Amino acid sequence: MNWEQALLSYLPEKTEEIATVISSMEYSLTAGGKRIRPMLTLAFAKLCGGSEEAAVPFACAVEMIHTYSLIHDDLPCMDNDDLRRGKPTNHKVFGEAAALLGGDGLLTLAFETVLSERAVQYNGYEKCVRAGRILAEYAGAVGMIGGQVIDLESEGRQVSVERLRVMDEKKTGALIAAACILGCISAGADEAQIQAAREYAMHIGTAFQIVDDMLDVTSDTATLGKPVGSDEENKKSTYVSLLGLEECQKISRALTDKAVACLKQFDGDTDELVQFAYQLCERKK
Amino acid sequence: MNWEQALLSYLPEKTEEIATVISSMEYSLTAGGKRIRPMLTLAFAKLCGGSEEAAVPFACAVEMIHTYSLIHDDLPCMDNDDLRRGKPTNHKVFGEAAALLGGDGLLTLAFETVLSERAVQYNGYEKCVRAGRILAEYAGAVGMIGGQVIDLESEGRQVSVERLRVMDEKKTGALIAAACILGCISAGADEAQIQAAREYAMHIGTAFQIVDDMLDVTSDTATLGKPVGSDEENKKSTYVSLLGLEECQKISRALTDKAVACLKQFDGDTDELVQFAYQLCERKK
Repeated sequence: MNWEQALLSYLPEKTEEIATVISSMEYSLTAGGKRIRPMLTLAFAKLCGGSEEAAVPFACAVEMIHTYSLIHDDLPCMDNDDLRRGKPTNHKVFGEAAALLGGDGLLTLAFETVLSERAVQYNGYEKCVRAGRILAEYAGAVGMIGGQVIDLESEGRQVSVERLRVMDEKKTGALIAAACILGCISAGADEAQIQAAREYAMHIGTAFQIVDDMLDVTSDTATLGKPVGSDEENKKSTYVSLLGLEECQKISRALTDKAVACLKQFDGDTDELVQFAYQLCERKK
Repeated sequence: MNWEQALLSYLPEKTEEIATVISSMEYSLTAGGKRIRPMLTLAFAKLCGGSEEAAVPFACAVEMIHTYSLIHDDLPCMDNDDLRRGKPTNHKVFGEAAALLGGDGLLTLAFETVLSERAVQYNGYEKCVRAGRILAEYAGAVGMIGGQVIDLESEGRQVSVERLRVMDEKKTGALIAAACILGCISAGADEAQIQAAREYAMHIGTAFQIVDDMLDVTSDTATLGKPVGSDEENKKSTYVSLLGLEECQKISRALTDKAVACLKQFDGDTDELVQFAYQLCERKK
């Protein structure tokens, strides 16, 4: 069973009485997306000599957390978005209450998955505890949720590059880091490798965000699949508005080089993760 | 350190950049309430020969889940309540976005707490995994969240006693059951004891709800601290509207007797839990 099949297998049965919330969870889990995080979990597990099979529950859990965060982020009281990847957002389909509860359900299911019998069978109790703890820490108030708060409070005002960096490290970087670290934990990697995976993740996370800001200026709506120029329209401080395009290109490449350098900590074949970092940096959408 | 001191000790440090979300979490954690669930976790741990100290992280985690569910339940897209226990609800103080994120933060923190170093130090890895798994299952889409969905979909229409029972078992009973089971797990109780704790919880949970419905009819606003007669006003099907007061009193007492009978499965001193069941049933507010 590959990880995407496994992902849906963790959903509870859609019995009549709870069909709405299960459908809400399923809708967003199957809505596509880049699937960056589970890919990273599996790649780091392999790199550290572990098996994909053992890392699958961890990869699925990270994707569930990512998915819940998008559902809650799209709600009217947050970004109030009607569309995500060309499809109606969860609350547009199921209503706000079911979207809220579907998000809560996925967040809860993520931890059920990390601690599931299957996860324990392949990884043992200690690794499951460590994985769940990292996931909670990086997805919680000092991690991803903290980043969303900083984002909310930055709306409509000029912010410094330093604040942008802190926000992105939490909002985007933290869960990417959790994804990489969970792969390492599954494979029994040592502390130095876990630190290296964390740094790799933080560098590609920031580079990813800088490229996002650049594409909002340089791309077009057809290529990107979402409106361009929205940052300027919303008077949002971005890396581009603060530093200019040329500087952004330099920084994003430098960060990618730094990320790739972190991979020297590993003996295995790092090709996939090297290529992935450069692809993220050079992407056109 | 007693469990209420411990509860706040699990909150992340309130640094400037994430102060809003930490304050939101803290506000609702310290808003009082009956504290039924942590009391049950500690009582079952003691009853099964465990220590309070070991059960404290589990007790705190259950209370965090309960608190997050109240924050999200009060949001405008759910019950839209302005007051809880005489205090403004979380979103009235911090705004909807911070209330949403504060709830998400508490849900996430609950699992960080079950899997914390402190929890492992006293309980070991296996028990922490089992506790986290039960908590996720009972708080998730087949448990508490499922009950909230049934509640939402029952609004404004006649529902059967059977549907009320299923709804309350999930919405209220499930987390009370998790509280009791987590106490048992911490103490290393056997399967039969865990089942007995679960049944005790489900019976007192339903009795609790029936008494709630009765008080909405028989009490007054001053005693209850919230408006009475709201169920009838909202044309909400309740045990009282479906069965009448007299029958409700009979059933709630019978359920309490059943709950107390479940305690025969345990050798230790069950006085506290016996009294607690009768107090819940005879309460006037």
